[in-house]
Amino acid sequence: MNNKENELNQNRREFLSKGVAIAAASTFAMSATSAQANTATAGVVSSVAATDAPKSVSGYIKDPQILKDVLINAKKIMDTCAACDISGAGRCNGKGSCGETVPGMGGKRKSFVRNIEAFEEMSLKLQTVHTISQPKTEIELLGVKLSSPILTGITGGLTYNMGAANKLAFDGETMTEEKYARGIIEGAANSGCLGWAADGIGDPLETFKRRMAVVSEFRGRAVAQIKPRTQKEIFERLDIVQDVGAPFFAIDVDSAGRAARALPGKTVEPKDLKKLKEIVNYAKIPFIAKGIMTPEEALMCAEAGCGSIVVSNHGGRVLSSTPATMHVLPSIVKALRDRGYKMPILVDGGVRDGGDVLKALAYGAQAVLVGRPMLRASLGGGVKGVEMQFARFHTELVSSMVLTGVADVRNVDPSIVMQEV
Amino acid sequence: MNNKENELNQNRREFLSKGVAIAAASTFAMSATSAQANTATAGVVSSVAATDAPKSVSGYIKDPQILKDVLINAKKIMDTCAACDISGAGRCNGKGSCGETVPGMGGKRKSFVRNIEAFEEMSLKLQTVHTISQPKTEIELLGVKLSSPILTGITGGLTYNMGAANKLAFDGETMTEEKYARGIIEGAANSGCLGWAADGIGDPLETFKRRMAVVSEFRGRAVAQIKPRTQKEIFERLDIVQDVGAPFFAIDVDSAGRAARALPGKTVEPKDLKKLKEIVNYAKIPFIAKGIMTPEEALMCAEAGCGSIVVSNHGGRVLSSTPATMHVLPSIVKALRDRGYKMPILVDGGVRDGGDVLKALAYGAQAVLVGRPMLRASLGGGVKGVEMQFARFHTELVSSMVLTGVADVRNVDPSIVMQEV
Amino acid sequence: MNNKENELNQNRREFLSKGVAIAAASTFAMSATSAQANTATAGVVSSVAATDAPKSVSGYIKDPQILKDVLINAKKIMDTCAACDISGAGRCNGKGSCGETVPGMGGKRKSFVRNIEAFEEMSLKLQTVHTISQPKTEIELLGVKLSSPILTGITGGLTYNMGAANKLAFDGETMTEEKYARGIIEGAANSGCLGWAADGIGDPLETFKRRMAVVSEFRGRAVAQIKPRTQKEIFERLDIVQDVGAPFFAIDVDSAGRAARALPGKTVEPKDLKKLKEIVNYAKIPFIAKGIMTPEEALMCAEAGCGSIVVSNHGGRVLSSTPATMHVLPSIVKALRDRGYKMPILVDGGVRDGGDVLKALAYGAQAVLVGRPMLRASLGGGVKGVEMQFARFHTELVSSMVLTGVADVRNVDPSIVMQEV
Amino acid sequence: MNNKENELNQNRREFLSKGVAIAAASTFAMSATSAQANTATAGVVSSVAATDAPKSVSGYIKDPQILKDVLINAKKIMDTCAACDISGAGRCNGKGSCGETVPGMGGKRKSFVRNIEAFEEMSLKLQTVHTISQPKTEIELLGVKLSSPILTGITGGLTYNMGAANKLAFDGETMTEEKYARGIIEGAANSGCLGWAADGIGDPLETFKRRMAVVSEFRGRAVAQIKPRTQKEIFERLDIVQDVGAPFFAIDVDSAGRAARALPGKTVEPKDLKKLKEIVNYAKIPFIAKGIMTPEEALMCAEAGCGSIVVSNHGGRVLSSTPATMHVLPSIVKALRDRGYKMPILVDGGVRDGGDVLKALAYGAQAVLVGRPMLRASLGGGVKGVEMQFARFHTELVSSMVLTGVADVRNVDPSIVMQEV
Repeated sequence: MNNKENELNQNRREFLSKGVAIAAASTFAMSATSAQANTATAGVVSSVAATDAPKSVSGYIKDPQILKDVLINAKKIMDTCAACDISGAGRCNGKGSCGETVPGMGGKRKSFVRNIEAFEEMSLKLQTVHTISQPKTEIELLGVKLSSPILTGITGGLTYNMGAANKLAFDGETMTEEKYARGIIEGAANSGCLGWAADGIGDPLETFKRRMAVVSEFRGRAVAQIKPRTQKEIFERLDIVQDVGAPFFAIDVDSAGRAARALPGKTVEPKDLKKLKEIVNYAKIPFIAKGIMTPEEALMCAEAGCGSIVVSNHGGRVLSSTPATMHVLPSIVKALRDRGYKMPILVDGGVRDGGDVLKALAYGAQAVLVGRPMLRASLGGGVKGVEMQFARFHTELVSSMVLTGVADVRNVDPSIVMQEV
Repeated sequence: MNNKENELNQNRREFLSKGVAIAAASTFAMSATSAQANTATAGVVSSVAATDAPKSVSGYIKDPQILKDVLINAKKIMDTCAACDISGAGRCNGKGSCGETVPGMGGKRKSFVRNIEAFEEMSLKLQTVHTISQPKTEIELLGVKLSSPILTGITGGLTYNMGAANKLAFDGETMTEEKYARGIIEGAANSGCLGWAADGIGDPLETFKRRMAVVSEFRGRAVAQIKPRTQKEIFERLDIVQDVGAPFFAIDVDSAGRAARALPGKTVEPKDLKKLKEIVNYAKIPFIAKGIMTPEEALMCAEAGCGSIVVSNHGGRVLSSTPATMHVLPSIVKALRDRGYKMPILVDGGVRDGGDVLKALAYGAQAVLVGRPMLRASLGGGVKGVEMQFARFHTELVSSMVLTGVADVRNVDPSIVMQEV
Repeated sequence: MNNKENELNQNRREFLSKGVAIAAASTFAMSATSAQANTATAGVVSSVAATDAPKSVSGYIKDPQILKDVLINAKKIMDTCAACDISGAGRCNGKGSCGETVPGMGGKRKSFVRNIEAFEEMSLKLQTVHTISQPKTEIELLGVKLSSPILTGITGGLTYNMGAANKLAFDGETMTEEKYARGIIEGAANSGCLGWAADGIGDPLETFKRRMAVVSEFRGRAVAQIKPRTQKEIFERLDIVQDVGAPFFAIDVDSAGRAARALPGKTVEPKDLKKLKEIVNYAKIPFIAKGIMTPEEALMCAEAGCGSIVVSNHGGRVLSSTPATMHVLPSIVKALRDRGYKMPILVDGGVRDGGDVLKALAYGAQAVLVGRPMLRASLGGGVKGVEMQFARFHTELVSSMVLTGVADVRNVDPSIVMQEV
Repeated sequence: MNNKENELNQNRREFLSKGVAIAAASTFAMSATSAQANTATAGVVSSVAATDAPKSVSGYIKDPQILKDVLINAKKIMDTCAACDISGAGRCNGKGSCGETVPGMGGKRKSFVRNIEAFEEMSLKLQTVHTISQPKTEIELLGVKLSSPILTGITGGLTYNMGAANKLAFDGETMTEEKYARGIIEGAANSGCLGWAADGIGDPLETFKRRMAVVSEFRGRAVAQIKPRTQKEIFERLDIVQDVGAPFFAIDVDSAGRAARALPGKTVEPKDLKKLKEIVNYAKIPFIAKGIMTPEEALMCAEAGCGSIVVSNHGGRVLSSTPATMHVLPSIVKALRDRGYKMPILVDGGVRDGGDVLKALAYGAQAVLVGRPMLRASLGGGVKGVEMQFARFHTELVSSMVLTGVADVRNVDPSIVMQEV
């Protein structure tokens, strides 16, 4: 069964032949979160910036001033990503043929689309006979005050996974992983929200450290994720995360699919209750378990002492068929609340506008993670692009609250949602 | 969170850079009803007519004689509106990518499409073993006799929102807001029905007055809408509406989404029961509350003394996900009738042919508002275009009544409808 | 409300301007069955053959030898009909934009598509552990022996409604209504089945007589339809039908939609129980009421003494939204059989292959009418084309019976059908 | 009713006119399994290799190294097959217009698509809080050890049915049936799984013998199918199958649709319980009945002593409408297990990735047959292509097991599946 490995190596070779030199990797980079195919070494792509001029792209807009132009930019340099609808709102229906050319990008089969469709099946009751004009959107999440209940998705490896390597960036120079990640983290911080620094299965510790240096710049306003590595490796990275002042951290346990193909330094594994407890005990900051899709596992996380969970199917990318996150969220909320657990519950997958945020809250989440819309905003506009995207989500959330008569995001009546098929 | 405002200003700048001068605005204009982005000042677009020759459009038909040609014309000058199916029947499936380039045009996400699909799920029982050959379609609505239970939708700002500014009109000269509005109002009046003059959030009072001058020409055969402004501003405009002889007026309370972004002269707000009552008390003509989507709010409108309501989700344009209007209509009808309220109940959203009109009546409405089909008829054929569109709806309604055995629109048996999925 | 009439006249003018002279009309023709727009006078199109050479059509196949080529031919000369899938099986999904350019062709809104989808929702249980190798397909219908339970649909006006006027026919000369109708009638008779001669609302009596002369050639193997005209006109035409030896006749009561627009010589009307009885009493041959969609009306037909009914929504063409015929068939069968009526029950709408025929029988029909597949076969291949199409349906029906273990079309177990969504 | 035969002959003539000489047929070939139209004589196509140089194909990749290139190759030479999605994963949604140009290829109507959609409706519960890192995928099937519970589909006639005759093969020379079949059989054997040699209705005995010579090369690692011919013919071929060391054999009873058109040497027939028993009694190796879709027939197979069944609707190709195989599998499993039958149950139709394999096991199957993905792998890459495809399925299966917490394919908890609509 060596053909698969051959294929992966071939993919890597093709990638390298595009002028990327591992040896020269010296700047900030994030590796992909995909559990499928990340043999590319982190730190690779950003080196391009130092050696090559970016390809000129027809119609690319330097220093874009409006979100629409940011998203147009992103589309122009995302060769391998069919972000299908670029009409201005950061939507992606996941129906493009991207699923196979990029590891897991766009999701496999219908899982990614299902996340989005789950939100579309939910209607909001339009109600305007009331007095709510200035709804409140602030929350406190594990000790951090947020202007809106919105975090970025946990995404990385965008320049090479999305085909953006050696392409033009909004500043007229080459797009790099560093620009991408800075856009996410600084853009979120400037918006009063939180952005994630991502870990990649193939990332060496050095790469992770460079990434944490950026987190360190936004002490308390940036958070970090660690792959479900061996316990020892997790602890090693957790030490660093804590040092740079991240208020909490996450492990995406849904990245364990590669467990059967363990390689030195690239091993991921499922985490049972015992290991979850070990991590909680080791950590000085709250531990968020990301990738929880069943009430049973949510209860184990609570029992282990996790600070929070993210109901997530990894954007539908790791398993060919999973339920939509919004379809399992209610049963998970019920299981935890019925047993008295008060931990915040997060959800990601398919959140595409401020109305979706309100729906997630109505179903019992305390906050959401927004992946692809933020990803595209950073690729096409950097820090400023991400700020515009956060602003759009915030404006839509406020407007949706006025139009449904919701005064405070911390108290959303489930009955504002009607299910439509 | 200034990025959103930046974007809106940018949109406006782009709009202005196309040769539109605010200062020169001097003729009739309607501003958009969208709650999202209408910072463009009313009165702007029509000025174009005085300064520029319209762009020639290939295949544009001057003085079109049949409805199909009217609709082809409309499509040709609606740059930014994907009126997807122009095959002659005024249909629009809302699936184009218009949602983001024009504020709210085409609706957001699935709400607009859902309105249309709700009608498509409803089948009419074909019945021809009877004696009904000449069914009656006349109704009396709040004192006004109508030849058919059909009003136009409340629409404005079409030349700039739909990209029709500086484009060719059916008379061989430039399309203007005035031509558009006159088409709607005069076309409806000539058809024995009623057309709406629309208010826009950004419209100064002067603009509103000019518009009312047109209503005044069709005294008793044209009606007017006011945005949910501050009470004082509403009363000011209501005085004018009453002066020009409108038999009733509407406030679209579903336009309150911008409440959190109040600006001087552009403030809209939700209206609670107390404020609704104040308006009813102030008004000398019946007040129609438009944008009611729940039985609870319908009952509040009835309690406040409203003359009628329009079950409406603002064409799916103000909130990213709302139920279809036809999905909530039956419960609203039931709530009102169960408590003995006899007010007429109107509905809009997705009415695309005469069969749809009959379906709305079967579900308990007394009349419908038809938006996009009338909009396109006026843009592509003016008064005559709107007359042709009304004629088509009337002919189809009559034929549908014969084929279902319905003798009178005032007495439609709900059992003629079968739900199909 | 003269705009609609204007439009129709305009359509007609365009039609006439393509070189058709009413005065010269002298040969066999059928007028359209559409209730919407048939002001074109019958007898018009066939005159073209005498005066013009047909336009050459690229890739048109003279004297086609296989069904696929017949259908390709049909598509090539059907300008205005989007017979969407021409891949060889006579399928049409009704999703083309034909609905508005041709009166009722392709159906309106979703009714036509719904007919087809109703068949697609039904699955057949594949069963091959049995001994049935030579299933029987013969039936006797109102005294006529048929080799398969299949009749043609009742269709006419094809050369002008489908844009085939002045186009190339399979014999290398001009396509005419006569060739079309002869293909249907002779092709069906040669296949041991029955073809319909159609009446058109605008057809003068002379036209009807010429048509009946063709029926007369196939005495006992061709049947005729009459529009729901005034009783006097029906009786007049019925006399002729009986003279030429048609074994039975049909009136399509679902054509009554134009009742409100009665014109001299073109009046259609609904038929109540009393009028149905008058027709039955006047007729010497069985009367089939076509266009029955409710159990109530089916029972009235039975009470009136009709020989049979056709469950039909006129191909979804006369009313914008009707249920699928296969959705109402079971309740109609039940109502009639529960009360002891033994009349054969026919169904049409969306029958696209031999498997569909078997499904209709499983739901209680005794035979089906096949419209568009036969229509295209005649347009593209005449008599021979229709024979090929009947052969295809017969072969598929036999194969479907072997694969479901059905020995005789007169005894089909309903349990061979499974509903799938 | 000779038109159908004419059409088939015409198809054959066209086929022959492309330079194929029956007389010269001398090498290995497989004929199609389609019950519809296989009058083409086996042994035909492979002769091309000896006489013609293959047509050059733009972008064809010689000796492809990754699966994506293999599939691109396949698409390039499959003129008549709309393998709709070639984005790298061997998917086919069956929605192309191939249904009619190739006998049964792509299935008819919706049956083929339904197979695929049935898998897509099933979601897998993502679960990673456990300790399963190295799940077991080995099974023993009727005495044969398999590395994964995966066999190839039973497919043949690919070079002419898919339009690949006289086209380029991965080795730079002409594609032949032999290369195709060797790819399937050797590729499967090299992957530790099993590949099928197919019988064709029109194949003379000599052709079958040549095919069995290939099976003989992989003694014990290749299996063979026989059409539901007359009992005598089956026994004759079974003798050969047993001689070459096939560990078991199958008869696809769902190929009986042509029974009514029996021809000398090409007769197929349904098989009742008595005949099934005769075959079981005659055979020295286990007999698998393929094409079972009802619990009743599954029980008859068990009673007859069959070694196994394949729940199959022949890829949706033989009957225009059949249920999805995954929709009937659970009731068949239940019927057999409730009565104590322990035979392995196989399923085919629409298996497109490793997640689908796991779903089939969760519903009670012991193994699956994978058709089109293997077919395309062999056409585009031969033995190596099929190995890559098996490797992909295996990797995905393992990853899916880790992510759902399944330790062993022989014990899959049905509760890992959630139904989503």
